[in-house]
Amino acid sequence: MKRLFIASRGNPEQMAEMFRKELPDFDVFTQQPAPGDADVPFIVVGRPTPGVIAAVPGLKLVLSLNAGIEHLLASGEVPDDIPIVRLVDDGLAEGMSDWVLAHALAWHRNLAAYRGLQARREWSPLKEKLARERTVTVLGAGALGGMAARHFVRFGFNTRVWSRSGRTIEGATSFAGQDQLIDAVRDAEILVNLLPLTDETANVIDASVFDAMAPGGFFINGARGGQVVDADLLSRLDSGQLSGAALDVFRTEPLPAEDPFWSHPKVLVSPHVAAPTHAHIAVAEMAANIRRFEKGEPIPHLVDRQLGY
Amino acid sequence: MKRLFIASRGNPEQMAEMFRKELPDFDVFTQQPAPGDADVPFIVVGRPTPGVIAAVPGLKLVLSLNAGIEHLLASGEVPDDIPIVRLVDDGLAEGMSDWVLAHALAWHRNLAAYRGLQARREWSPLKEKLARERTVTVLGAGALGGMAARHFVRFGFNTRVWSRSGRTIEGATSFAGQDQLIDAVRDAEILVNLLPLTDETANVIDASVFDAMAPGGFFINGARGGQVVDADLLSRLDSGQLSGAALDVFRTEPLPAEDPFWSHPKVLVSPHVAAPTHAHIAVAEMAANIRRFEKGEPIPHLVDRQLGY
Repeated sequence: MKRLFIASRGNPEQMAEMFRKELPDFDVFTQQPAPGDADVPFIVVGRPTPGVIAAVPGLKLVLSLNAGIEHLLASGEVPDDIPIVRLVDDGLAEGMSDWVLAHALAWHRNLAAYRGLQARREWSPLKEKLARERTVTVLGAGALGGMAARHFVRFGFNTRVWSRSGRTIEGATSFAGQDQLIDAVRDAEILVNLLPLTDETANVIDASVFDAMAPGGFFINGARGGQVVDADLLSRLDSGQLSGAALDVFRTEPLPAEDPFWSHPKVLVSPHVAAPTHAHIAVAEMAANIRRFEKGEPIPHLVDRQLGY
Repeated sequence: MKRLFIASRGNPEQMAEMFRKELPDFDVFTQQPAPGDADVPFIVVGRPTPGVIAAVPGLKLVLSLNAGIEHLLASGEVPDDIPIVRLVDDGLAEGMSDWVLAHALAWHRNLAAYRGLQARREWSPLKEKLARERTVTVLGAGALGGMAARHFVRFGFNTRVWSRSGRTIEGATSFAGQDQLIDAVRDAEILVNLLPLTDETANVIDASVFDAMAPGGFFINGARGGQVVDADLLSRLDSGQLSGAALDVFRTEPLPAEDPFWSHPKVLVSPHVAAPTHAHIAVAEMAANIRRFEKGEPIPHLVDRQLGY
């Protein structure tokens, strides 16, 4: 019987039960196999506990529980010839899109300002812009960035996407590569980060990016904290170059109690919930990928080690 | 020279200037014409000042500055045989849609709850639902309701529309007429009012509607205050049957300082800004309608006096 090891940190037994229904011909288990045990070709893992992956005998395929796999690569425990599959299911892109648009539209329509006016019982219409009068730049044009960008296009925003490859999204303007980053964000009022975290994207969102935006813009980060230079973000919030930021991801998570983001009046903090993994959708997708692997069929979202995602 | 009277209350001269560019062959003016003056076939008017419309000689077409025209009908000053055109331009539907979705998505993704957690520096992920796990009912399936419903469908919400005519929106389930109102809202978590205010829709959103929704649902009103029984809304907010409401329109506007909505902890008040008139778009649309009228072409959004919108 083929063996599948569920090494997730949160409730692995519940997930194993779901896998047993999807893959009744598999031995699905949650206890660390010992060296010398029968081969375990498949492992499901999120942020890996050190030593766990390295100790698995006969590994053939690693199924990540996350879209971002920088922790798996950094662990150094997955041999170069063992493929890694990112989890990019419909639920993930859906969740990310509605979280991004929730923050973008709330800022666009001044919802926070109206809460302030309401507290003073003040009936004062603010100047409202149409979506078509604002420019939004989405960093990333893959499954997540692409879906968010398509929503922005449908609302009528002047939409741009920036990616390594220059992938196009219908109705949006595409920019590619480091050379075009500043052009991509110039005069944008809303900047959305949905990039994978790689050597190339680490620290890419810095003062030069924020300064190229329209004054008073809004920054939304649903990807990873490591792409943002926090000191630059804070200084641009304090100067007024940025009017606010919605941050779901941070360099250290949980966000330490002393972090200035917690109490900054212009920052909205959420605890890495933009695109939670929905177990039933994720399990179905991972089980399908195991079947594809067994049949030698192409697997979507295989990690390219050179690109780092 | 054909005459066009701009009778808007807010900055009519600025709007007249825009009309002069669109209709250079017209005499565009902002002063009330006297009886016995040359005929004035066209008037642009929002909420009418009493006596203004009745005093216009030779009127042929009334161009409303609003989508809702209940004030024009209630004035009794527009003769039955004079057509009224509602203002339903792209800008109006666009603005309404992004305001509705801003509130719906912010509620759906618990943004207010995360602000509360942030204030306590508490890193506590809440249970997040996918859009596909929620039902949204949009009351109204015209230019405004239809556009909002299409956005809900694209985000993956289980979407329903309810209207007088039963008009269908792709991807949504349609309900028609008073008999199907309760079925349309049953178990919905988000209820959006985008109905015209007519004799039939006055007070239609009452306790029976709120009680049919899923417990803890959210109500969004971007249409008119007169469709809602305020006492029922308040009682269902207080009982917890509703977890919140975003209200942009009220029976009396500006909302009186003593109104309980101002200080209700579950109510978000905004000062009738969901779909502001954007002058440049509105003027272009109204000028096009004047040209259509002159050529005898069909005019979109002509008011049906029987239906009241």
